[in-house]
Amino acid sequence: MNAAGEPTIGDIGEFALIDQLRGQIGDNRHILLGPGDDAAHVSTNDGTFVVSTDLLVEGRHFRRDWSSAHDVGRKAAACNLSDINAMGGVATALTVGFGAPADLPVSWALEMIRGFEIECAHVGAHIVGGDVTASDKIVIAVTAMGDAVRPVLRSGAMPGDIVACAGRLGLAGAGFATLSRGFRSPKAAVEAHRVPHPPYAAGPQAAGAGATAMTDISDGLLADLGHIAEASGVAIDLDSSAFVIPEPVATVGEALGVDALTFVLTGGDDYALVATFSSQTTLPDGWVRVGTASDGAGVTVDGQAYEGPRGHQHWR
Amino acid sequence: MNAAGEPTIGDIGEFALIDQLRGQIGDNRHILLGPGDDAAHVSTNDGTFVVSTDLLVEGRHFRRDWSSAHDVGRKAAACNLSDINAMGGVATALTVGFGAPADLPVSWALEMIRGFEIECAHVGAHIVGGDVTASDKIVIAVTAMGDAVRPVLRSGAMPGDIVACAGRLGLAGAGFATLSRGFRSPKAAVEAHRVPHPPYAAGPQAAGAGATAMTDISDGLLADLGHIAEASGVAIDLDSSAFVIPEPVATVGEALGVDALTFVLTGGDDYALVATFSSQTTLPDGWVRVGTASDGAGVTVDGQAYEGPRGHQHWR
Repeated sequence: MNAAGEPTIGDIGEFALIDQLRGQIGDNRHILLGPGDDAAHVSTNDGTFVVSTDLLVEGRHFRRDWSSAHDVGRKAAACNLSDINAMGGVATALTVGFGAPADLPVSWALEMIRGFEIECAHVGAHIVGGDVTASDKIVIAVTAMGDAVRPVLRSGAMPGDIVACAGRLGLAGAGFATLSRGFRSPKAAVEAHRVPHPPYAAGPQAAGAGATAMTDISDGLLADLGHIAEASGVAIDLDSSAFVIPEPVATVGEALGVDALTFVLTGGDDYALVATFSSQTTLPDGWVRVGTASDGAGVTVDGQAYEGPRGHQHWR
Repeated sequence: MNAAGEPTIGDIGEFALIDQLRGQIGDNRHILLGPGDDAAHVSTNDGTFVVSTDLLVEGRHFRRDWSSAHDVGRKAAACNLSDINAMGGVATALTVGFGAPADLPVSWALEMIRGFEIECAHVGAHIVGGDVTASDKIVIAVTAMGDAVRPVLRSGAMPGDIVACAGRLGLAGAGFATLSRGFRSPKAAVEAHRVPHPPYAAGPQAAGAGATAMTDISDGLLADLGHIAEASGVAIDLDSSAFVIPEPVATVGEALGVDALTFVLTGGDDYALVATFSSQTTLPDGWVRVGTASDGAGVTVDGQAYEGPRGHQHWR
């Protein structure tokens, strides 16, 4: 509570705030899918598009002493392009709102935008508009729009479906842990924290293969898979032996005395994909089976609750 | 320059920064109109949409001691819906990125979102997605998307065209001047600064009537009309006798010893529209002829350069 005795957003936390805000929002015939999934799905006079937005704040989402302007731009673009990817879509256009203090070098802003465009080139998208404003700290607001022939929601997983992942898991989380302790190596992990490598081909391929549910992994596999389990009303069990621990992740685990599997299961910021498919599906290239959906609720590992850090929540 | 001798964004200012950033941005077949107008125009697999974005920062775009959360939400929505209006379009969907400190009352966030939805109801739009994050100051990032059958650009004005306005002019500027001096009346002016009333019907009507160029007035009529003159390669002369000075604006002018016409010509934040039409056009209801386009460059008033404050530029 604040001095006036009112509950604050810090009291209730990010997820409760989002729930309450959503309760204020209406609906219209253009909104095929509103808030609550990786992206919204909106109809136009003559077609449809998918759209997602992210707000990044210096000191919380990135640090100028950890990442170059180019890397910040690439990552800001990647986390939004990944949301479109997670719908099975392909991003075509981004808008960028940019707030910065007057003493920011011009070169920093230019390098950041170059980073955006380099990352966007992976899917053929470009920046189509933006806004700049003065701000004490750097703020980057990104909205990505794109096409999705058949948007894949979080809510379609069925008991009996197989669970599969595409993309890298644990590298960025291990890189974050490394940087947080003041180290700069292993380089592959640190680089993965600075610039993620979302599996951009894998989203549309999964949609084409009939994925029943899909999301991207920004907060950690267990946390994000929890959203699929909850939205779909299924239980999901992961098979820990299905995960190959990347060598740099194993190195970081040893150095910091942390089970390397923790980074794979709970590390964020790799922007890999996790999806469910009917058990008859032949998985597209790059997708690896890691678990199974069944009747019930919650996410388990080898049949048991996983004891370890879960995803990050703002103000908590 | 900063301590390292690098030019900073404060050195070059908002407009030069935008120019340089635009130079980094590429193009693809989906981008029918890129950065530089009120909104971009993007094609999808099966249609098109228009999109615009704004970033609002507490203390620069709004003050919690001047405006309620509800008013901040309404204004944040209005300035984006206005960009779609200025293309001759109708907004259908908004995304909202929201950064705030932990001690913000939950009720402030809820009231702000209610304000968004109330303003969006004017055009039938809704919020379709968002993001929340922790931030020292409140930051609101808005992206509006909509339909425009025939987007009206800033670049289509021709010599001989008539220039016309729709909506209120000078009220919000007079309200800002009032609040800046510590006064709270005249109420109509103060209220106009808190919550603008964009003429939402006028944009699509102008497009339907064949407007050759159009923009909304966020920085002041002279400043924003300057964008049309420059993009179209025409000169524009305004007839000062064509403007009716709203009574509260006259009151503020008298009280502060300022020519009330200054608020009409240079005051921002009313989100009125200014457009050009071929001289044969019958102006739609609500549009008032205020000037003429001709060969040349620049914007004049009664044939002369207008001596007075121009639009706001960040970091300057």
